[in-house]
Amino acid sequence: MSPSLVANADLSPVTSGTVKGRVASVYSELQTSRIDHALPLPSVLKNPFKIVDGPASSAAGNPDEIAKLFPNLFGQPSALLVPNGADAVRSDEKLKIGVVLSGGQAPGGHNVISGIYDYLQDRAKGSVLYGFRGGPAGIMKCKYVELTSDYIYPYRNQGGFDMICSGRDKIETPEQFKQATETAVKLDLDGLVVIGGDDSNTNACLLAEHFRSKNLKTLVMGCPKTIDGDLKCKEVPASFGFDTACKIYAEMIGNVMIDARSTGKYYHFVRLMGRAASHITLECALQTHPNITIIGEEVAAKKQTLKNVTDYIVDIICKRAELGYNYGVILIPEGLIDFIPEVQQLIAELNEILAHEVVDEGGQWKKKLTKQSLQLFEFLPQAIQDQLMLERDPHGNVQVAKIETEKMLIQMVETELENRKQEGVNKGQFKGQSHFFGYEGRCGLPTNFDATYCYALGYGAGALLHSGKTGLISSVGNLAAPVEDWTVSGTALTALMDVERRHGKFKPVIKKAMVELDGAPFKKFASMQDEWALNNRYISPGPIQFTGPTSGDVNHTLLLELGAQV
Amino acid sequence: MSPSLVANADLSPVTSGTVKGRVASVYSELQTSRIDHALPLPSVLKNPFKIVDGPASSAAGNPDEIAKLFPNLFGQPSALLVPNGADAVRSDEKLKIGVVLSGGQAPGGHNVISGIYDYLQDRAKGSVLYGFRGGPAGIMKCKYVELTSDYIYPYRNQGGFDMICSGRDKIETPEQFKQATETAVKLDLDGLVVIGGDDSNTNACLLAEHFRSKNLKTLVMGCPKTIDGDLKCKEVPASFGFDTACKIYAEMIGNVMIDARSTGKYYHFVRLMGRAASHITLECALQTHPNITIIGEEVAAKKQTLKNVTDYIVDIICKRAELGYNYGVILIPEGLIDFIPEVQQLIAELNEILAHEVVDEGGQWKKKLTKQSLQLFEFLPQAIQDQLMLERDPHGNVQVAKIETEKMLIQMVETELENRKQEGVNKGQFKGQSHFFGYEGRCGLPTNFDATYCYALGYGAGALLHSGKTGLISSVGNLAAPVEDWTVSGTALTALMDVERRHGKFKPVIKKAMVELDGAPFKKFASMQDEWALNNRYISPGPIQFTGPTSGDVNHTLLLELGAQV
Repeated sequence: MSPSLVANADLSPVTSGTVKGRVASVYSELQTSRIDHALPLPSVLKNPFKIVDGPASSAAGNPDEIAKLFPNLFGQPSALLVPNGADAVRSDEKLKIGVVLSGGQAPGGHNVISGIYDYLQDRAKGSVLYGFRGGPAGIMKCKYVELTSDYIYPYRNQGGFDMICSGRDKIETPEQFKQATETAVKLDLDGLVVIGGDDSNTNACLLAEHFRSKNLKTLVMGCPKTIDGDLKCKEVPASFGFDTACKIYAEMIGNVMIDARSTGKYYHFVRLMGRAASHITLECALQTHPNITIIGEEVAAKKQTLKNVTDYIVDIICKRAELGYNYGVILIPEGLIDFIPEVQQLIAELNEILAHEVVDEGGQWKKKLTKQSLQLFEFLPQAIQDQLMLERDPHGNVQVAKIETEKMLIQMVETELENRKQEGVNKGQFKGQSHFFGYEGRCGLPTNFDATYCYALGYGAGALLHSGKTGLISSVGNLAAPVEDWTVSGTALTALMDVERRHGKFKPVIKKAMVELDGAPFKKFASMQDEWALNNRYISPGPIQFTGPTSGDVNHTLLLELGAQV
Repeated sequence: MSPSLVANADLSPVTSGTVKGRVASVYSELQTSRIDHALPLPSVLKNPFKIVDGPASSAAGNPDEIAKLFPNLFGQPSALLVPNGADAVRSDEKLKIGVVLSGGQAPGGHNVISGIYDYLQDRAKGSVLYGFRGGPAGIMKCKYVELTSDYIYPYRNQGGFDMICSGRDKIETPEQFKQATETAVKLDLDGLVVIGGDDSNTNACLLAEHFRSKNLKTLVMGCPKTIDGDLKCKEVPASFGFDTACKIYAEMIGNVMIDARSTGKYYHFVRLMGRAASHITLECALQTHPNITIIGEEVAAKKQTLKNVTDYIVDIICKRAELGYNYGVILIPEGLIDFIPEVQQLIAELNEILAHEVVDEGGQWKKKLTKQSLQLFEFLPQAIQDQLMLERDPHGNVQVAKIETEKMLIQMVETELENRKQEGVNKGQFKGQSHFFGYEGRCGLPTNFDATYCYALGYGAGALLHSGKTGLISSVGNLAAPVEDWTVSGTALTALMDVERRHGKFKPVIKKAMVELDGAPFKKFASMQDEWALNNRYISPGPIQFTGPTSGDVNHTLLLELGAQV
């Protein structure tokens, strides 16, 4: 493949103003080439199917409370699609289906919608698909657009959520449920697909329960979305977007590793998205082999303090200096400090003090802190102290999310290295360089895996709605096999739920899937991390390829969880 | 291409410990696949050639001074390789050649070395290639490695400079020239290839002059390297690495654009590498169509102040808010503040004051500032004021490079928007999000263009040394044509030079190529920027592809400079 003059991107407007939706967009050559990328379907979706119900389901915890919260849905079985001689669904039925994107973007969302649309075209011709705009608020305000073939076309296999956009509103209050019901009635909806994370799927299930309790015909189906990878379970082996996002981050990390090795003088501290769970950080570590990786769940399990984490990093840096390596790459999950109890304690105390006390310049206010919290506060770098004191949300609370953990760690590592230098223990050089890889990964072009997986999730959701199912989450399994052999089912959302006590009431929640310390991905990492720490086993995965080598790769986490060797 | 289980990266050690060089490296599947990627050569390099000398050359400025500085080299013609029935070089000659990488990494450096090596294998069998380790210091300390076929193999088409690493030392003092001469004599060097930027190529020419003045046989050849794209001229149409780096940044910018459009609530301020010139920012703008792009050269030409730049951004943000867009993407060159004279003035004054005055907390010291500088200082956000006062280099100077320009602009824009809100002029919402894309781009896998271009540069450098040439820079031209038809020549380094007066002496310099405001790339940008500002013409180029669509693309800057339509 030799460089040559190729017609460039900015003169190839696929849609410019002529197609509704991505109005006035211009497409790059690669985006254009992806639009017509044909997606394989699991064979069960290519042929007539019927639904086989599994055994009655329970809940992830507190089944009695879940049963009370979902009297109409609790216990319903999972629904598996299996081949059938003749279609069990009526192909002359015309459905009215709504779809909504909820929460942060994840690559592949557009393909879920394409999948639903194509199912309706293929199996229930004459059906209508409405896209609610701007997330759940679109349902409540009945703000929607009819999704046609032309409308959807330019978004096929494309990143982003801009076809109908997303939002973070929730349908929570009785008034909001009433609004949602009005929309369902007004549009005569047979079904609604909610594409979102754990909260959004919980919300989907509440909506399904509500509609059923009102004897509404509107069925509700969930879809597992989040780049963080923390919405998954046995039946739902992956949330979409994780594969693409991790590969984008891994490309950048791999480049930074080659840079570190070439210059030999920087420690790159890379913060990665993932506030609640450290799946992204773990996956990126498995793909790239950094010298140090901090996994929040491990920090929590070992009850480590910030000082412990700092010492762990500094110990490795010193050992590496002895080996002649004054460089390295360190991965940190964005949610790290949420995993450290002493930090949570400090923040709670600060919130209390800031709400009620005058913060004097002399520092008298610090006497209100417990001894442990004061010690931690004084251990923090000045810039972080300032940030904790100054940047607060509208409720006056300290904004943990604003803390740049990677910069904080660099400063703490610098201080500790300086201490050791004065003790004569450390003779190395240290230059920290901070990075945050976040937004770059949420809206990339979906990998072949995410494109195909999402299409099957959407197509399957259509099939389940058509079969009269509600309160399920679209589940595509057997992902280690060829697409042909993937299974398609719906899992009872109530089966994923537990309750949490909030304001004296039980609230249903789908528990976030955390990194399991006895799971295959973490165990693989744990068995390698000492080797990676001192030897430089960097791997640079390079940019995502859509054809040729690596274009068929699947992320390590999924493969390891499925028992495959990687 | 369907997702399937593919053998994953971490079990495919190409070199693990068995091949010298990238000792104990493990390769990703994509890296491995790139190693054997066959590179086309310009046809003139595939066949017997002879050298045709051009007319006598002059200098870029002050030819009389350049003539005095380079008495042995000044005026020498450029050397063009042309096909010849029989090779004009002696294939039985065995050469001893050294190569060195100088300065910051740029994708493709390893391919220059591969090109030199392959030339010697193909045309002067039995020759030896030495790689000086760690940059010019390796020459002075005679620290080198013999580059063999096995040694080079795993680095073919790979990013980074880690084959022999690089360094930023210069060969400047008489003592250092003596050391370099000793190395050349000790290794009996017939030639030396210096792969570097403007300074390194100037240094290469001084070395060529020195060797010739000492009647040493060692010839010296330069090679144009820098991701910043600021080493180029008519004869040297591009510096390598620019193509790859810009495409990596453009991938990230494109993703952030889709994110901005999907969420509808962030202004992403993206700082890009390029301290001296804004080529990278301009190229990324041409590839992605951001709403606002600041080009340093334009700011300088229009003698804009920081306030002007802020107002320009705020004006567009307000207009966009009226259109309902509370989001956008803004590109900023890393060197922006170097282009603003008032900032330079302020920094000069601060350096002076900080060196001689006590900086009192009450701020009495500020009275030493000129009125204009005081005004600017007070206009700067607090965090930037602190940075200017606190972070200083070992000479006590303010560290301009440490200023996070994108964060500074976000704060200034926030303040100005607040002012306008209070005047009732602005009713939009503004949330700034900062990014710096730098290290991620310097060490990526070279694009097909950079891989091929570098290979030709190296192969050509070998041919020129073999032909007895010195003091030239390897020049590959006609780049808009198929590789087959690319031209190969050497350009007299003295022809690129001018002088600068430093410490009362004339110093030769290769002037950095700045963004030309009447050049085709800037004119194209200027004709589009108003359109991009208010309409969202975002293009997301996606990840670099090595096969299939876009794998043959060349950057817009080069194409436009060559007169092509893009």
